Amino acid sequence: MRVAGARLASSTLTANKSFLSDHRLNLKSFGLNNVNARTKFNQNLSLTTTTKRQMASAAYKPEQARVPPAVPLPTPPLTKFKIGLCQLAVTADKERNIAHARKAIEEAAQKGAQLVLLPEIWNGPYSNDSFPVFAEDIDAGGELSPSTAMLSEVSRRLKITIVGGSISERSGGRLYNTCCVFNTEGKLIAKHRKIHLFDIDIPGKITFQESKTLTPGETPTIVDTEVGRIGIGICYDMRFQELAMLYAARGAHLLCYPGAFNMTTGPLHWELLQRSRATDNQFGEVLATTEHEEAIIISEIDYSLVEMRRTYLPLEKQRRGDLYQLVDVQRLNSQ
Amino acid sequence: MRVAGARLASSTLTANKSFLSDHRLNLKSFGLNNVNARTKFNQNLSLTTTTKRQMASAAYKPEQARVPPAVPLPTPPLTKFKIGLCQLAVTADKERNIAHARKAIEEAAQKGAQLVLLPEIWNGPYSNDSFPVFAEDIDAGGELSPSTAMLSEVSRRLKITIVGGSISERSGGRLYNTCCVFNTEGKLIAKHRKIHLFDIDIPGKITFQESKTLTPGETPTIVDTEVGRIGIGICYDMRFQELAMLYAARGAHLLCYPGAFNMTTGPLHWELLQRSRATDNQFGEVLATTEHEEAIIISEIDYSLVEMRRTYLPLEKQRRGDLYQLVDVQRLNSQ
Repeated sequence: MRVAGARLASSTLTANKSFLSDHRLNLKSFGLNNVNARTKFNQNLSLTTTTKRQMASAAYKPEQARVPPAVPLPTPPLTKFKIGLCQLAVTADKERNIAHARKAIEEAAQKGAQLVLLPEIWNGPYSNDSFPVFAEDIDAGGELSPSTAMLSEVSRRLKITIVGGSISERSGGRLYNTCCVFNTEGKLIAKHRKIHLFDIDIPGKITFQESKTLTPGETPTIVDTEVGRIGIGICYDMRFQELAMLYAARGAHLLCYPGAFNMTTGPLHWELLQRSRATDNQFGEVLATTEHEEAIIISEIDYSLVEMRRTYLPLEKQRRGDLYQLVDVQRLNSQ
Repeated sequence: MRVAGARLASSTLTANKSFLSDHRLNLKSFGLNNVNARTKFNQNLSLTTTTKRQMASAAYKPEQARVPPAVPLPTPPLTKFKIGLCQLAVTADKERNIAHARKAIEEAAQKGAQLVLLPEIWNGPYSNDSFPVFAEDIDAGGELSPSTAMLSEVSRRLKITIVGGSISERSGGRLYNTCCVFNTEGKLIAKHRKIHLFDIDIPGKITFQESKTLTPGETPTIVDTEVGRIGIGICYDMRFQELAMLYAARGAHLLCYPGAFNMTTGPLHWELLQRSRATDNQFGEVLATTEHEEAIIISEIDYSLVEMRRTYLPLEKQRRGDLYQLVDVQRLNSQ
């Protein structure tokens, strides 16, 4: 069976030694539009004799299992492409981190990657002490955001799409954990602020409260790029299955979750959560994985495999909208 | 770390050799009420100074992530107990299958199990040809349903709770794939009819249409037993993450999914789906697993571990009801 997802994992060098951090970057899933199959299905319904099974199926209201109903997957701009996942060691020297990330992106692009991903908080240590120190004004850009200025320059120069992991963002007197997406012209086309902050307290193992310094984002982020429609989550966002369900219903081809998992819940759940989101929403499967060292993984994404999976196992037509519904609140309100 | 879930897997001997069946029985998860913690939390909100974080958290409406809001977990009738999972080989001889299942249940009870589970379609072969032949009138009972009569007799005699896998049920001229739950007095206290029928078409690997002979159930099934509140699903029901989310919101301590997985999607996803449901809804983890032989697994369930997990990682208070909501349609309509 062909592979259809990628996973990366590595440790980082952080200034905050008391927090054992495990920077991981993850590409988890993708899907292909099935417009032709969908059209045929509708024609069958109208042109052929309605069978008992089709009548019964309609009574279970599968389309109502998502509110608003799931968007038909758009035709992706390409079927196959190479993706590069850069797992980086991070230091307390921001300038060094930026130069190091630039080099990794260039290497991934040189190896053929059309989409390159970075991990969560790659320009400085992952700690509440460091977030304010390393924060940048992304909207101002330029000298006020050297990290994203680099991403913009590299994406334009190399003509690649970048899902730029995350950095801490300063905006309106608040701090966010923010992922920036750049298109092949170097334009910032999406900014995802981590929606679910990582507040955890496991006595004797790990205590961390991102909410001490950070403010959560206000919206899910899905963006059309030259390599498909991408839904973005940052690390702990992946815990919440609803976000991936919502992105799938918005027609995502690919979900990207930059992460910096800890060493208590990380080894237990990081891969499991990725596999859960990919399998439950019929995107893909694990394509590659690393341990805790720095690494650049290059893998091929093939959206046609998702079409195949969704045809073989047509969950979308089998859900019971008469029994359960997942509501996408903002999409519903925007209609 | 303590274990908190169990998995069983075995093959069955079926009359229909063309369908390679893999009868599996699964106990996947459980949870403990946390009424005390919940009460304390509410008191804090009313008695102490409302902090910035608490105000912020309220704005994200975590309680609205489930509609109606999640039910507080009831105090379970007991904290620890033994569970027995019987993985059975099935033949085309119903009388033999019933006697064989009785013996397995007796053995599990003798080993201390207070809750005993059987696999999907345990009284005859898993095939569309066999479903009508082996079907029973469960509501009539007695001689018209020798399989459930046995379960009732054994549960009463041994004073155990039984989640009786499933058999094909004939009712009102229709056939269902039905799981019966018996209490320690031998009373039938719940009947779950498989909600999501297994209709799959993977060319050259597996084609099966349960809907050719069976009718899907009309309602989720959750039942209070002497060993806690149990949500029931049958095999393919587990594919649909919404059902487990809905049971968790109804205060389930335990989810039970009798199964008979096929050998194409089974090896790929059977364990993954169980782990996904258990982790995403914070029930438990894999406690035991077998291969394809007959087996009786005895394991200890400890609901207190779930209280611990949900305290350490308080997902319920971190969900974003302002962004997504899972609606339990029947519970909402019944209010």
